[in-house]
Amino acid sequence: MADKITSRSQDYSQWYIDLVRSAKLADYSDVRGCMVIRPNGYAIWEKMQAALDAMFKDTGHVNAYFPLFIPESYIAREAEHIEGFAPECAVVTHGGGEELAEKLYVRPTSETIIWASYKKWIQSYRDLPILINQWANVVRWEMRTRLFLRTTEFLWQEGHTAHATKEEASEEVLRMISIYKKFAEEYMALPVIMGRKTDSEKFAGADETFCIEAMMQDGKALQAGTSHHLGQNFAKAFDCQFQTSAGELDFVWATSWGVSTRLIGALIMAHSDDRGLVLPPKLASRQVVVIPILRGDKTAVLEQADAIVCTLKKHGIPAFVDSSEQNSPGWKFAEYELQGIPLRIELGPRDIAGKKCVVARRDTLEKTELPLDDTFSMQVSEILNNIQQNLYDRALSFRNEKTIEVNSYEEFKTAVENGFVIAHWDGTDETESRIKEETKATIRVLPEEQEYLDRYKMMEPGICIYSGKPSARKVVFAKAY
Amino acid sequence: MADKITSRSQDYSQWYIDLVRSAKLADYSDVRGCMVIRPNGYAIWEKMQAALDAMFKDTGHVNAYFPLFIPESYIAREAEHIEGFAPECAVVTHGGGEELAEKLYVRPTSETIIWASYKKWIQSYRDLPILINQWANVVRWEMRTRLFLRTTEFLWQEGHTAHATKEEASEEVLRMISIYKKFAEEYMALPVIMGRKTDSEKFAGADETFCIEAMMQDGKALQAGTSHHLGQNFAKAFDCQFQTSAGELDFVWATSWGVSTRLIGALIMAHSDDRGLVLPPKLASRQVVVIPILRGDKTAVLEQADAIVCTLKKHGIPAFVDSSEQNSPGWKFAEYELQGIPLRIELGPRDIAGKKCVVARRDTLEKTELPLDDTFSMQVSEILNNIQQNLYDRALSFRNEKTIEVNSYEEFKTAVENGFVIAHWDGTDETESRIKEETKATIRVLPEEQEYLDRYKMMEPGICIYSGKPSARKVVFAKAY
Ligand SMILES: [Zn+2]
Ligand SMILES: [Zn+2]
Repeated sequence: MADKITSRSQDYSQWYIDLVRSAKLADYSDVRGCMVIRPNGYAIWEKMQAALDAMFKDTGHVNAYFPLFIPESYIAREAEHIEGFAPECAVVTHGGGEELAEKLYVRPTSETIIWASYKKWIQSYRDLPILINQWANVVRWEMRTRLFLRTTEFLWQEGHTAHATKEEASEEVLRMISIYKKFAEEYMALPVIMGRKTDSEKFAGADETFCIEAMMQDGKALQAGTSHHLGQNFAKAFDCQFQTSAGELDFVWATSWGVSTRLIGALIMAHSDDRGLVLPPKLASRQVVVIPILRGDKTAVLEQADAIVCTLKKHGIPAFVDSSEQNSPGWKFAEYELQGIPLRIELGPRDIAGKKCVVARRDTLEKTELPLDDTFSMQVSEILNNIQQNLYDRALSFRNEKTIEVNSYEEFKTAVENGFVIAHWDGTDETESRIKEETKATIRVLPEEQEYLDRYKMMEPGICIYSGKPSARKVVFAKAY
Repeated sequence: MADKITSRSQDYSQWYIDLVRSAKLADYSDVRGCMVIRPNGYAIWEKMQAALDAMFKDTGHVNAYFPLFIPESYIAREAEHIEGFAPECAVVTHGGGEELAEKLYVRPTSETIIWASYKKWIQSYRDLPILINQWANVVRWEMRTRLFLRTTEFLWQEGHTAHATKEEASEEVLRMISIYKKFAEEYMALPVIMGRKTDSEKFAGADETFCIEAMMQDGKALQAGTSHHLGQNFAKAFDCQFQTSAGELDFVWATSWGVSTRLIGALIMAHSDDRGLVLPPKLASRQVVVIPILRGDKTAVLEQADAIVCTLKKHGIPAFVDSSEQNSPGWKFAEYELQGIPLRIELGPRDIAGKKCVVARRDTLEKTELPLDDTFSMQVSEILNNIQQNLYDRALSFRNEKTIEVNSYEEFKTAVENGFVIAHWDGTDETESRIKEETKATIRVLPEEQEYLDRYKMMEPGICIYSGKPSARKVVFAKAY
């Protein structure tokens, strides 16, 4: 089993590192800032991919693959884009033993290489919309890295769509951020606030960036997905015009949207505890572990354990048995708690005699007895649903508790060390950047959801906590990962 | 619809290029040798991935992800490996705006970066075996490229396993090449010869390479998958020792195995025709297209078309309707033939009156009538199975016809322009390389399958066609992609 995990209360940062290493989710490699995603971590990514990919396809998107390398001249075409990305890129200068005539950037994101293709594919409104997604690796040179959350190379999906009108593009931007919200809440059991980014926080090259923001157990924010309205910026940079249905020429409208393996970091930080990983059942490739207590009639216990696994699998519940005699039941309990298996079934000779078993939930650590009768699989399935819902409810209560509204900068400075802060802001870059400098807190999101707006009366005008100038609305501040 | 496709008889090479472009499977990008895999092409890759991934998992493998970048010093650790790969690598020299202290190679294959991790993970026989697969992009600088078949960047999977004994590793090597054979034959409808490579054709760093070789419609060979016994070479290079169950220290045994997006090229070259793509139903994301003939009572026809799609989908057959009035039925017939949809259903007012429809197979271009009754889905499913089987049978007959046994070098030189050649070889590198120099033909495989060995009496001793020296067995020569 694993080394001891530092407790969250003692050192949240160290707890995270210990957990990721002990549960064998990821490792640093010897390549600066690059991680190895180990099988336990990658299995979570596969579940995420499957769920997201199905949602993308249900909304008419198809997958494709564009080159890893981007010519320097492409990156340079969109002015804000090169300013934002070029300094953090890895650059290929040699290939096939020779120096290259033009440097190649390892993609930090693919807008430019994709719009070079779209220019070739789009002539008329009949070629629109294009609704393409790509699953890929990207590289952004990072000085300070953290497994899953910030690494030089990471895995992600990036959607890139092309539309005939601005309105259609706007609809797409909102459709995709809504899909991300649905995924975060229904699969990751992670409540998120959906809304817009300020100008200074938006994507380099976008007119508007929508995001979903989640709260971690230390009260910090984590951006869990973004969807960008790119206007006609990339179409203009790549001279991509099309004939409209009215017979005129216009530039194509664009969106892009993405989530990455940092979601695995968010998942860990939102739900896990001092014993290890806590996984929402919908993202657990193994939902139930059966641990036979091998005393007395071992054969009967092992047979019943296998029978339980077989029944659960038949009902679509991925279960497995650990019958190794090398490790004690207690060791196994700890090991599978560390690995975040949502449900543990303990089964000994006395259970078999009583036609029952003991069921231990990973989220609450509660143990209950379940009869081994015809209702068994249904009851297990119900408990798994309860775990999924409980994780969400717990995270939402936590976020509500840790969200504080303030009316002065003094209050703000204390509150923002502890969670999300709702406050009035005068709408200027200057105030935003001063607050960031002084407190390291940023404006995470200008919420767009009615429920959230109502809850905190966000659209009421007021006075900026920093400048004392008039403020049109409140915004959400936090320190962030 | 697409531009005209050159016929195979006129120019096979041009036919392939025309088809790939017209069917929108892939495009060259402006990055030298790198391709864009378009949605129609990527959909085939997704079907391949799903089938292979399930087979890997059924045999106990798990997925993981290792860094894209490999430090120069890693590549250098295995002598044959660096000699084979370094000259064809892309090299990152700058990151984050600064020159790197150590150059990073974009992975051409991942043995070295993976064994650097395995060294950390493996201490004892209890940590073995490790059965990991990775889905990833790799880069090998290519001077002469061809879409799917040979590109600078391509997608693949690479399995990397670690074992306590040589025998276990040998079993794994054979298990995986058998899985590739099964996949090629059952999914791709592609007959392949399984066997060993000669020393000069094996993987750089392997003790032994197994492969599957397929024949294309021009009689050339295409290597469709490889599985390598790496012995203890990489364990020694990375000083990866483990404690055996007997308490001694030994180096770990290794295998690696992979298939790539070149399989899409193989699929096209094996089955397609002058009208466009021909897809085996098992790799078609859309198996049936319904084309309504919109004359007379359009509403009735459209309703029936939707009903057919609905019924087929309910029975697990992915079908869709093209009811656009912008294009004629004839245009649609040609378009979906180009795209390789295995089955076309034509439905007009007269068909509805007669409670029937016309069904056109893509493989044979045959048309038959099917009654629209309770047996309909079952009959469609049967036809799809027949198409799958027919493609395999046709390819196998073709390969048999184009496989010739020769007894002299004169015969050899003529025969090898036309297909596979079975011939005696004296087993020396010298003979092999001279034949390659003079004819451009290589020894593709030393077959290991009993059926193939029997068919061509391959294990009978004889006289080398080139040197006249004694030969222990026959081998398979061909020109290759
Ligand atoms: Zn970057
Ligand atoms: Zn290489």
